[in-house]
Amino acid sequence: MLRTNTCGELSKKELKKKVSLCGWVHSRRDHGGVIFIDLRDRYGLTQIVFDPSHNKEVHKMADKLRREDVIQAKGAVRSRTKGMANPKLKTGEIEVIVSELKVFNKSEVPPIEIDDRKPSGEDTRMKYRYLDLRRPSVQEKFVIRHKTMQVAREFLSARDFLEIETPMLIKPTPEGARDYIVPSRVHPGKFYSLPQSPQLYKQILMVAGFDRYFQFPRCLRDEDLRSDRQPEHTQLDVEMCFAEQEDIFELTEELMEQIFKKVLNVKLKTPFLRMTYDESMLRYGNDKPDLRFGLELKDVTSIVKGGEFKVFKEVAKNKGIVKGILVPRGGEFSRKKIDTYLDYARSCGAGGMVWMKVSKGVLESNVAKFFSEKIQKELIKTLGAKEGDMIFLVGDSVKVTNGTLSRVRQRLGQELNLINEKEFNFCIITDFPLFEWNSDEEKWDPMHHIFTAPREGDLKYLEKDPSKVYGQLYDLVLNGTELYSGSIRNSNVEIQERMMKVIGMSKEEAKDKFGFLLEAYRYGGPVHAGFGLGFDRLVALMCGTEDIREVIAFPKSKSAENLMDGCPLVVDQKELKEVHIELNDFAKKSLNKK
Amino acid sequence: MLRTNTCGELSKKELKKKVSLCGWVHSRRDHGGVIFIDLRDRYGLTQIVFDPSHNKEVHKMADKLRREDVIQAKGAVRSRTKGMANPKLKTGEIEVIVSELKVFNKSEVPPIEIDDRKPSGEDTRMKYRYLDLRRPSVQEKFVIRHKTMQVAREFLSARDFLEIETPMLIKPTPEGARDYIVPSRVHPGKFYSLPQSPQLYKQILMVAGFDRYFQFPRCLRDEDLRSDRQPEHTQLDVEMCFAEQEDIFELTEELMEQIFKKVLNVKLKTPFLRMTYDESMLRYGNDKPDLRFGLELKDVTSIVKGGEFKVFKEVAKNKGIVKGILVPRGGEFSRKKIDTYLDYARSCGAGGMVWMKVSKGVLESNVAKFFSEKIQKELIKTLGAKEGDMIFLVGDSVKVTNGTLSRVRQRLGQELNLINEKEFNFCIITDFPLFEWNSDEEKWDPMHHIFTAPREGDLKYLEKDPSKVYGQLYDLVLNGTELYSGSIRNSNVEIQERMMKVIGMSKEEAKDKFGFLLEAYRYGGPVHAGFGLGFDRLVALMCGTEDIREVIAFPKSKSAENLMDGCPLVVDQKELKEVHIELNDFAKKSLNKK
Repeated sequence: MLRTNTCGELSKKELKKKVSLCGWVHSRRDHGGVIFIDLRDRYGLTQIVFDPSHNKEVHKMADKLRREDVIQAKGAVRSRTKGMANPKLKTGEIEVIVSELKVFNKSEVPPIEIDDRKPSGEDTRMKYRYLDLRRPSVQEKFVIRHKTMQVAREFLSARDFLEIETPMLIKPTPEGARDYIVPSRVHPGKFYSLPQSPQLYKQILMVAGFDRYFQFPRCLRDEDLRSDRQPEHTQLDVEMCFAEQEDIFELTEELMEQIFKKVLNVKLKTPFLRMTYDESMLRYGNDKPDLRFGLELKDVTSIVKGGEFKVFKEVAKNKGIVKGILVPRGGEFSRKKIDTYLDYARSCGAGGMVWMKVSKGVLESNVAKFFSEKIQKELIKTLGAKEGDMIFLVGDSVKVTNGTLSRVRQRLGQELNLINEKEFNFCIITDFPLFEWNSDEEKWDPMHHIFTAPREGDLKYLEKDPSKVYGQLYDLVLNGTELYSGSIRNSNVEIQERMMKVIGMSKEEAKDKFGFLLEAYRYGGPVHAGFGLGFDRLVALMCGTEDIREVIAFPKSKSAENLMDGCPLVVDQKELKEVHIELNDFAKKSLNKK
Repeated sequence: MLRTNTCGELSKKELKKKVSLCGWVHSRRDHGGVIFIDLRDRYGLTQIVFDPSHNKEVHKMADKLRREDVIQAKGAVRSRTKGMANPKLKTGEIEVIVSELKVFNKSEVPPIEIDDRKPSGEDTRMKYRYLDLRRPSVQEKFVIRHKTMQVAREFLSARDFLEIETPMLIKPTPEGARDYIVPSRVHPGKFYSLPQSPQLYKQILMVAGFDRYFQFPRCLRDEDLRSDRQPEHTQLDVEMCFAEQEDIFELTEELMEQIFKKVLNVKLKTPFLRMTYDESMLRYGNDKPDLRFGLELKDVTSIVKGGEFKVFKEVAKNKGIVKGILVPRGGEFSRKKIDTYLDYARSCGAGGMVWMKVSKGVLESNVAKFFSEKIQKELIKTLGAKEGDMIFLVGDSVKVTNGTLSRVRQRLGQELNLINEKEFNFCIITDFPLFEWNSDEEKWDPMHHIFTAPREGDLKYLEKDPSKVYGQLYDLVLNGTELYSGSIRNSNVEIQERMMKVIGMSKEEAKDKFGFLLEAYRYGGPVHAGFGLGFDRLVALMCGTEDIREVIAFPKSKSAENLMDGCPLVVDQKELKEVHIELNDFAKKSLNKK
């Protein structure tokens, strides 16, 4: 056994014990000829001491040790000198006086500091990820990730869910946008694709009668460079037979309660708030509301359309919408600060944003004159504004108004310090529209995916007015981030065929895309439901970061490259020939340019 | 809630309880107008009864139910009529008299029977895998797989191992034989590859100080068609810092003990037998001996070379080897049966095999005359043969002799019923040679992989005689199947460079292949060790099968196709253009031929 203990566990209980520790030289100090080294491993730091009066030879060896050398030190545990204890450290009361030293491997001077107080630039961190990962604050995130996975697995296993692996090499979807494809060597000219999600296969598992399934699948998608997503991410994928929405919601609540309790020791408030999609759009302007603060949007179209402000009158006439948001104590905002918000609103897509301060019971603004005192008072009342507050108004299409004001709301929440960063506020959004109108192609598209069951009462509108058909669709939202999307699946072949007609999908196209699943449902498809949770996102939020790369061991850069191993790379002609492909002219030119 | 209970749990405890069950119609019998249906789900079968005198309408509906229809049945639990209880069934004492019936989905006549007693052909099973998977004996294997994974995870988590995911899209290895490559859309002309194992990345995790790691990674390899391997398989990948071989072996023993105890309720014998590679080759002719039976091979070269049998004399002269195996009661073998073994030996590569029966203290055979009585008696003694036994002898190169006799031994074990099929006999093979001579290219190749540490005492031979250098390499073997291969890794940059010289790998080549790992070790590489266990193989053996496809939900066929979803497939020209590749002429011709 090379070590008797880790560097994170010795205390006064082990005084005089002979121990052997292994780890990295974290820091080294020389005090009057005695060398003190903080030895580091994943579990902590232990001070080890090289005293020439204790062992001359070992002290001499220690004199050559440098940061990040990997060593084994044997010696006895003793109390630190009075006044030298470090109460911040688990091992802060003791030190090990070293009698034997073995240097496993020396380190060159590391290009980045293994010190949380001295973070390096993003690219350097990623190139030397193995050094970056040595930082305790970085390692801690992977401990949280690990624990979260294990808690989820134990929770689901205890409830009869089976973890079943679905394939990585699957059928390419015709027009499978952003699918990674993989040429086959043994079948020249044919390809597999990598899964963007195990959706079809988990549905097959339900048809196969596995009843309750989960998996932490890797999902791959050839994302655009501008995206801040990763080409591969991990889901927590769950599906269960004979479940209704409330069964899924209760499962979700219990799962999250256990995860947050056992991993972070945080007690969540349950049940999570349920809110329909329509209500969320009305009150927050989006379908993933951050409920850690208020500032609800108010529809004021009917109020302002009576005024003289032309923009709003036009909006009302064109089926647009005018919505307002309260800015508490916004009356104090400087003109410059107001302008920042107006610019931000424009960058979000709105033509502009109107601001008005509440002063002496009426509104003050460059456009206040267009609104009668009655309208002003109604606005103040509707928005619940008080003396010294401000209101922002945006009038545009429903989409642009909501899109703009929901983002203005989020920014206000942050800048006015309305957000408790330690709060985890979950909600469940329900009843999404099943279809959305694609005005480019003048057709209906499925809003989620084609295997979602419509609300039973809405079936009658399916052919007449698809916009009135809502799906048994639900999202889990945490602090304004969508964590999962799920639905009651449609297992009924007849309804499936009606839905395909609505979106204009021919039987041939359906067969090409997911024929094997449609066929499977012909042999007794169970009612089933589930979700696919963005696991990296959950862990990132638990770690207090928004960047999922912080919780992925070897993430790709924003341009889908791994700076450590250098992928993707040019491969030999010989290897291309092995899998029966060639670069096309565009690829050849691109490579030559570089 | 659609169901109050599963189909596998009701008993007399629930008499009179109103229940709701959901599941598949497994079978249907009509007895004097009363319809009995076995309703099936993953948990079992429950008899449900439709009696027209109880509910006429529901009985009428039930009359239309057919096999594999999916229904919900509500009713009360009651005792079965006297004498009708089924003691083989958990729910065999009760039945549910149905008052309400809902048909979720009807089933067409299934193309295969959901009945373990009526298995369908391989191809049909795979095409309709969702029906094949409904069979209880098939589902049971996935319960075992699930439990094995969870037990392993709990065991490793409790010992501070962290589950960390390594990337699926990695750096292509130059000349990476059998690597799947993946063209990048956003980097025209460049490729990722899919991992054959996470080896390099888990070593990086050790350099990063994670101390103890595990993962159940998917490993992908573009196998040849003739292979019976799968293009993707799952490993249990484990690595730990500051470990010596015995630490790994003890961990392995405890892990396997827990798995077999908790999943199969089988108590394993520990410690597992340790045996060196050299000893295993000597006694069993291979490095994965099936120790459930004896029949050890004996080297008899020195005995037979004194005889007149030319073949063996030549073998001895040419540094070959003659080995023998005892065939208990083989004297009873018919001439025809003996011939089957002789043919088998030839099919294993040997020029021939010699047989001799023990009769009256000497040997009887067509070649016995070439051996003096003294030699015959020596052979009998060395092989421990008794009256009525037989011995087989093979003389050839060391490789062919061992290869042939180890397979003859396995066949004898099976055909003589020497194997207890319920036994799980583990052993650990140690001290493999580090290099093997590649006579085609006249150079030394690494026998395992280049990051294996040599035995410390053997370093002195590294340049002088690589054949004398053994590695700190070990395999775990179960019943003659290699389950894992592992090693103490070489973290020392200087030794690494010496080893590369031995195998003739230039610094440039090393840098191309795994430059980032070599660089990582420059910054303080810890001593570490681990293994990658073939998880599908373990589960298959636990389920009593040798075919890993039985424990993979959606396996590929022997020609790497998925008969259910149809992959691999031809993809559109448009999609190829998206990722900047074209088919080469060979691929185009291959497709046109079909």
